[in-house]
Amino acid sequence: MQRITIQISQIQETKILLTPQQQHYLLRVLRLQDGDKFIAMDGMGKWWLTHLKGETGEILELLEVKTELPVSITLMVALPKGNGFDDVVRCCTELGVTCIVPVLSDRTLINPSPQKLERWRRIAAEAAEQSERAFVPTILEPVAFSTAVNASAANQRYKRYICEARGNYPHLTKVLNNLSGEIVGENIGENIGEIVIATGPEGGWTDKEIEMAIKAKFQPVSLGCRILRAVTAPIVALSLITAACEA
Amino acid sequence: MQRITIQISQIQETKILLTPQQQHYLLRVLRLQDGDKFIAMDGMGKWWLTHLKGETGEILELLEVKTELPVSITLMVALPKGNGFDDVVRCCTELGVTCIVPVLSDRTLINPSPQKLERWRRIAAEAAEQSERAFVPTILEPVAFSTAVNASAANQRYKRYICEARGNYPHLTKVLNNLSGEIVGENIGENIGEIVIATGPEGGWTDKEIEMAIKAKFQPVSLGCRILRAVTAPIVALSLITAACEA
Repeated sequence: MQRITIQISQIQETKILLTPQQQHYLLRVLRLQDGDKFIAMDGMGKWWLTHLKGETGEILELLEVKTELPVSITLMVALPKGNGFDDVVRCCTELGVTCIVPVLSDRTLINPSPQKLERWRRIAAEAAEQSERAFVPTILEPVAFSTAVNASAANQRYKRYICEARGNYPHLTKVLNNLSGEIVGENIGENIGEIVIATGPEGGWTDKEIEMAIKAKFQPVSLGCRILRAVTAPIVALSLITAACEA
Repeated sequence: MQRITIQISQIQETKILLTPQQQHYLLRVLRLQDGDKFIAMDGMGKWWLTHLKGETGEILELLEVKTELPVSITLMVALPKGNGFDDVVRCCTELGVTCIVPVLSDRTLINPSPQKLERWRRIAAEAAEQSERAFVPTILEPVAFSTAVNASAANQRYKRYICEARGNYPHLTKVLNNLSGEIVGENIGENIGEIVIATGPEGGWTDKEIEMAIKAKFQPVSLGCRILRAVTAPIVALSLITAACEA
């Protein structure tokens, strides 16, 4: 069934007031007719089964969504060169990320324009729809690595990891398995408030950055024995975390 | 250290006869001088530490490579639309794939040109170098899904999986963990000859294709609760298999 993302302010009792763009999409592009059903998502966890009635949607019922992870995942990604960040946003949204923080590291070459941020947010909304998620991830404005790392350090319930290819660090999956071993018979998601995971730029983090992260209670982890590109590493990290939560 | 891929026929005793392209790359692009070291890879698992001597390389020693997985992985991917297959080849090479079989499924729209195959093989060679692999994955010519599935069925030692988003199948990671549970105290890679894994096209496999795969001893598995794009699914599948082998 087709899905559209709405603002909560569009709902009036059991009606959804559709914007001209949404009317165009539903009536002209999809050619829906009165009584045809679609799903309205608020991007914050709620889905409503809705049918079309003139230029509005009539809410039929609140749907239960089973596509969200039991744990909140914040991904800090050093901005890769070129348009690589588009792929990171798209794939990590599909994989269930909650929040993406683009970070400027010592080896990051670019400082993206505000237009880029708008573009990433649009990609996240589209990818959330396509992957049938209930929730559109938040994409924050790019910040310095030190700011991102220290902001996260305040919360005690967070589990923090920083991925680094060089150096003899334990594998992320091993660390996550030990975590669920500590919490015998229970699911990772029910016991951990939030996972924060950082992946580096082309060329890796500097020693100074790794030290700063360790001071802020990030545990260095490996994603395997090969050198991954800055675009591939966050996708692999998210794959391993979702598997640890859902397998 | 810089790496180049050579043909085994370029080696004569302890000398590597460099092609004009390799001479240009080492001497003009990288500006190496006599005595400077580089690594020559044969793309079949061997690396040699070499130093430059005029227009040839002088082999110093055979290097031990630790970046290859202990298990051989064949990935059957239904060709996605657009240029998405480039990303599949690049990322899955970084992740350690052994062989990629592009398959034409019931929902595959395109039949790629021979130029595409050349392009994918070039991408695989580049990605193998960048990710410091010893081995360049084989990219086979595109074949029909039925051909690929039945060709694989002959070998008894293969473990075969087909990924499918819809339907209530067990998670790939759970299945792989059970596999290593059966082989107590030993590594997956030492006990399994080869893993074959198939990922579907946009819109998923047809019921007929899933049935055909099950008959050919493929076990249907899930990659999690969200709907992944045809480009994302193989990257996630490879991430989970490598983690099961290396974590």
